[in-house]
Amino acid sequence: MKSKHPIGILGATGAVGQRYIQLLENHPWFEIAWLAASDRSSGKSYAEAVKWRLDTPLPERIARMTVSPAEPPSASNDAPKIIFAALDAAIAREMEPKFANAGCAVVSNSSAYRMAPNVPLVIPEINAEHLHLIEEQPSRRETGGYMVTNPNCSTIGLVMALKPLEERFGIEQIFVTTMQAVSGAGYPGVPSMDILGNVVPYIASEEEKMEAETLKLLGKLEGHAVTPLAARITAHCNRVAVEDGHMESVSIKLKKRATHEELLATWAEFRPLAGQHLPTAPDQPVQWTAQPDRPQPRLDRNRGNGMAVTVGRLRPCGVLDWKFTVLSHNTIRGAAGATILNAELLASLGKLEPGSPATDRGRWSGEPVAAAAHA
Amino acid sequence: MKSKHPIGILGATGAVGQRYIQLLENHPWFEIAWLAASDRSSGKSYAEAVKWRLDTPLPERIARMTVSPAEPPSASNDAPKIIFAALDAAIAREMEPKFANAGCAVVSNSSAYRMAPNVPLVIPEINAEHLHLIEEQPSRRETGGYMVTNPNCSTIGLVMALKPLEERFGIEQIFVTTMQAVSGAGYPGVPSMDILGNVVPYIASEEEKMEAETLKLLGKLEGHAVTPLAARITAHCNRVAVEDGHMESVSIKLKKRATHEELLATWAEFRPLAGQHLPTAPDQPVQWTAQPDRPQPRLDRNRGNGMAVTVGRLRPCGVLDWKFTVLSHNTIRGAAGATILNAELLASLGKLEPGSPATDRGRWSGEPVAAAAHA
Amino acid sequence: MKSKHPIGILGATGAVGQRYIQLLENHPWFEIAWLAASDRSSGKSYAEAVKWRLDTPLPERIARMTVSPAEPPSASNDAPKIIFAALDAAIAREMEPKFANAGCAVVSNSSAYRMAPNVPLVIPEINAEHLHLIEEQPSRRETGGYMVTNPNCSTIGLVMALKPLEERFGIEQIFVTTMQAVSGAGYPGVPSMDILGNVVPYIASEEEKMEAETLKLLGKLEGHAVTPLAARITAHCNRVAVEDGHMESVSIKLKKRATHEELLATWAEFRPLAGQHLPTAPDQPVQWTAQPDRPQPRLDRNRGNGMAVTVGRLRPCGVLDWKFTVLSHNTIRGAAGATILNAELLASLGKLEPGSPATDRGRWSGEPVAAAAHA
Amino acid sequence: MKSKHPIGILGATGAVGQRYIQLLENHPWFEIAWLAASDRSSGKSYAEAVKWRLDTPLPERIARMTVSPAEPPSASNDAPKIIFAALDAAIAREMEPKFANAGCAVVSNSSAYRMAPNVPLVIPEINAEHLHLIEEQPSRRETGGYMVTNPNCSTIGLVMALKPLEERFGIEQIFVTTMQAVSGAGYPGVPSMDILGNVVPYIASEEEKMEAETLKLLGKLEGHAVTPLAARITAHCNRVAVEDGHMESVSIKLKKRATHEELLATWAEFRPLAGQHLPTAPDQPVQWTAQPDRPQPRLDRNRGNGMAVTVGRLRPCGVLDWKFTVLSHNTIRGAAGATILNAELLASLGKLEPGSPATDRGRWSGEPVAAAAHA
Repeated sequence: MKSKHPIGILGATGAVGQRYIQLLENHPWFEIAWLAASDRSSGKSYAEAVKWRLDTPLPERIARMTVSPAEPPSASNDAPKIIFAALDAAIAREMEPKFANAGCAVVSNSSAYRMAPNVPLVIPEINAEHLHLIEEQPSRRETGGYMVTNPNCSTIGLVMALKPLEERFGIEQIFVTTMQAVSGAGYPGVPSMDILGNVVPYIASEEEKMEAETLKLLGKLEGHAVTPLAARITAHCNRVAVEDGHMESVSIKLKKRATHEELLATWAEFRPLAGQHLPTAPDQPVQWTAQPDRPQPRLDRNRGNGMAVTVGRLRPCGVLDWKFTVLSHNTIRGAAGATILNAELLASLGKLEPGSPATDRGRWSGEPVAAAAHA
Repeated sequence: MKSKHPIGILGATGAVGQRYIQLLENHPWFEIAWLAASDRSSGKSYAEAVKWRLDTPLPERIARMTVSPAEPPSASNDAPKIIFAALDAAIAREMEPKFANAGCAVVSNSSAYRMAPNVPLVIPEINAEHLHLIEEQPSRRETGGYMVTNPNCSTIGLVMALKPLEERFGIEQIFVTTMQAVSGAGYPGVPSMDILGNVVPYIASEEEKMEAETLKLLGKLEGHAVTPLAARITAHCNRVAVEDGHMESVSIKLKKRATHEELLATWAEFRPLAGQHLPTAPDQPVQWTAQPDRPQPRLDRNRGNGMAVTVGRLRPCGVLDWKFTVLSHNTIRGAAGATILNAELLASLGKLEPGSPATDRGRWSGEPVAAAAHA
Repeated sequence: MKSKHPIGILGATGAVGQRYIQLLENHPWFEIAWLAASDRSSGKSYAEAVKWRLDTPLPERIARMTVSPAEPPSASNDAPKIIFAALDAAIAREMEPKFANAGCAVVSNSSAYRMAPNVPLVIPEINAEHLHLIEEQPSRRETGGYMVTNPNCSTIGLVMALKPLEERFGIEQIFVTTMQAVSGAGYPGVPSMDILGNVVPYIASEEEKMEAETLKLLGKLEGHAVTPLAARITAHCNRVAVEDGHMESVSIKLKKRATHEELLATWAEFRPLAGQHLPTAPDQPVQWTAQPDRPQPRLDRNRGNGMAVTVGRLRPCGVLDWKFTVLSHNTIRGAAGATILNAELLASLGKLEPGSPATDRGRWSGEPVAAAAHA
Repeated sequence: MKSKHPIGILGATGAVGQRYIQLLENHPWFEIAWLAASDRSSGKSYAEAVKWRLDTPLPERIARMTVSPAEPPSASNDAPKIIFAALDAAIAREMEPKFANAGCAVVSNSSAYRMAPNVPLVIPEINAEHLHLIEEQPSRRETGGYMVTNPNCSTIGLVMALKPLEERFGIEQIFVTTMQAVSGAGYPGVPSMDILGNVVPYIASEEEKMEAETLKLLGKLEGHAVTPLAARITAHCNRVAVEDGHMESVSIKLKKRATHEELLATWAEFRPLAGQHLPTAPDQPVQWTAQPDRPQPRLDRNRGNGMAVTVGRLRPCGVLDWKFTVLSHNTIRGAAGATILNAELLASLGKLEPGSPATDRGRWSGEPVAAAAHA
């Protein structure tokens, strides 16, 4: 890959936007060429516009870039055709189709279109074949542009742990309780008065997202749509006083009987991207930890550069079959890294090249179908 | 009740021992007459022996008391006949039968004998009738002494929320994930390096205790023993960075169909101790909170002076029937307050009066039966 | 005092407003008769308008009260003549003079007028005589109305510890580093992402307030104005992950030589309000703790119902003379309790009775003098 | 440097020992050849002996190494001649001289001998010339062995910030208040019950160490000894709920007048190791941050791979001349990294080569002189 793909970031000053910048510094395939944010920031240097909140320095080249208005590429506008989007759902719902209509590949972390029937909700290790839904998008036919989404931060860890088990044994019932880090709420996000020495047993819409997204991700592409997995699922979502790293207590009922050893082997052998050389993909996406008191957010969230999911404490469940603990880094594997890995997958499939649309006409209307209104 | 019962505290310098002292200051029925702790403390004034860790001042009368050796009442020893015990399980296993054999009413917070077939595991609002097991104890026949226990701190909140539902609708399956405060581990307990900005998905033996104790508490006294509730139960126990207050995400399957309104009404009407005037019993033991993000440890743990349990977020469960959140104060309702309330119940039943044993002979051997070896 | 003074609260839904409500429940002298907040809340019931964040229940009578618009008493308005104000400085600067001009006694926690030359900045134990400045206010002469302020939450603990030493030995130099609780910033206030596992070495304007207010409080009323104490002072203000309770590391240089014992005795003997029976005043306003690792926020902030200040660790200083640690509860002694105690002092002096103004004409112009622009 | 120096670690399972292992993985000059710990661990594999608490994986080669007894090299023992020591002070006091007497270069993080007149207390950027004290040690003359120490974790940040100012302007008075991370107390260290939502204003012996070590580090080697800096210093040491990173609020009085710009320039130009290419030395040891609310532990502690010190908030002081905030990573720059950098300095000076002792006879007696008994 001689020259890098120029990419743009929508929502560049927010928490996920900052993570894109951090993770894309020195990326072998992508180069940040354009940064857009709200009108308040537009026209400023990025250094002026941002309250940089990461523990690595703001790269100097990025600091000096000027923040652009959030307008799609046009004759008078040099926005690139590959857009990493990190907008709030309400804004994304309006903005992302505009970029797709203008011919962009919109790789998004927003929840706005995750559940739209013709928008792929993808984790490369899990359901790369769902990318076919791109071809069902109206913009794709006219301009080549399209939208691809990644799941909610709490969904990713769960699905990564479940997928290999689903493949080999089938999953019938899923019970999950989350203990989620505050960074999942962005910045300023959770007030310290709410979370110091406390647990908040509620995150708006989180349980609904987690339940619906999990079944779509584990679902099957059949013709022009994805049929969600026919399993029963329930989520209890809680916020805890952790900076980064979502913990989940999980119980499952399998279709086929499995032993403890078989489950561990299934996770160990799960390397669906082996040989594809996506730069951000971890060698071992699901990592087992044998110590009885692990995984823990502080100690395990950075495995695989924050892209691996850690499972531990596998033991029989008194209600379903098995129970275990899952941890994933919510702003890397669960957000910015997920988007980047989706873009890498698209690049490896040649879907980021310009001029490849089919010929049928169509555009995103800006009025998403009902299913897309899922926040 | 003209004069107060003199009581003694075993394990007076520990975290639960300190809570006994705090909660018994100005108690209308009980007066602390004797404090015992390890050999290291024995002979010192209590003020010297203790590292007082509560946010109310150490009462001056108690501060000046001399710590006694942990020896049962005898000719040469003025230990009282009512003992509030807060010993570690290993020590309790050896020590509590000695006090029972010496004619004491041992009201204990320890796990050592909770699961022994002839030891009542009691929450006054839940299963006062299990106290009959006292009469099955060998020491009771010889000296009048006996042992009564209260459950683990994580069990109490769950059982308080479940009991009224079990009575009216029957419970078939129970799923619970805990997020437990550090004070549950005593002092020094959980290292700060383990819990700051972290979650620890493991507390030794906690899941086993919680599962077994819940079924015994909800079980039925039949003849000389308790038959545990025939329900399936699974617990995931986690430690979080909270000082006091255990949160629990719960799902249940009922035998009979119930509506949202019926469940709320069942909790609201649950006042099993009404009219008994036990000083530490809360008027409303299970309190509903309607706000979507409650209960929370910091805001709700002190309801009913720390003796009420708060439930919230009742909603349908995708796997079982209903799901909700429970909170209880782990060192008050879940430990010291539980012991005191048990003692109040015993007092109201006349079981703390001396000289009431039956005539059959017997003593605790010091070798608990197998079932009692539950830590 | 047969009937209670009806009082109103300006800024009733904020963090300090909530504390007023909590602390005034069952107050023997004052009764809440009127609640005002921003236009957004006006017309709603208080229960609807507030996000109640305290760990005691919202009193039912208050919950049902209707929130009034923030308008001073008039023919068409039944706002009471005693106003407890808890507004942001910018709003207070405009609003408080309107209420004073309308004849109200405005007892305020805001910083807006603390440094105005004719506004008393008062702690009853420290400088009650500064209340004379009321008579220098233009509104006082026309309508009887006036403004009285209490200091910043970080100032009060320091000044309480210094005052007795200043009286007996004189203070020449003051060095203070604060470690301040997040509740000092109100709600939502400090984002959890900023403070979990962190220290923020900056609180806007806090150091300037603390330095200026300390010298005014310890200053002398001379004729029509207060001459600040002629001491050198420097403050380092930091925010830490504590819910309530400001800690301060203090070093001082005295004018006269003092021994360790003399300093302790000076604090112990400091009971300037003895015999005045103000309901909220602690018996022992400055409390010494002898343990080497105390005071601590969690264990000591509630001394004297949150109104006492705790000092500890007195030892020689290698640069100045002595060093020690001070703790005070920032939202009780440092905010709502301070206002209430000021109101109690005013009541005991007969200054809350209507119709006592002098005859000279005058009104607050709404344009505070330069010194008042101190945020 | 063709082959690496084999080194041993004393106290390999503790918090600092683990950091040595983490930081020495892939070190270009040193290779871990020997691990020793207490008798409890001796004979086990390192993986079995350690509770690994870092967020990078335990290196596999190290995991498989067998833990040796803590005995100095001898005929029957293959302990290496370069020892990185991380023992508790009481054990170090006895053990370190044994290794020095056996011919080892003992590079230590312990406080046991820091203040001994003939033991260098060294930070390479500050006072490399103090290493001459090695030649004053009795063991050096007989076996070539010697001891070198680095300062307390709270001292290093302060001294790094002060040294360039001392060189250019002279320092007369130093005032410092620390807010120290829990990792400074090792593991299990600070109980969570003590620090969650709390500040502890006391760390045993910390203030004394910080004051004495600072003056020795800034002192001058004169003949056979170091004359401490003749400045007045006072330290207030506090523990806060931070995992890693010590914050310090500092005020200083200078001998010569300096402007804000001169102070910033002095820090910027401070590169005393430039050109020496010590692998662990940061390019810019003292880094200025211009944002008003920085440095912060979470965001700045890892600058220079945890080896740089960050200063911010420089402003005039109302008591002394200037005040500012300092941050340093307490377990990297303040402990394990400090030891490693000292070893690198010794290597670059040829002091780690065997067989270079002078000829005078002598041994450490095991009875340290009085000054060394400083814990």
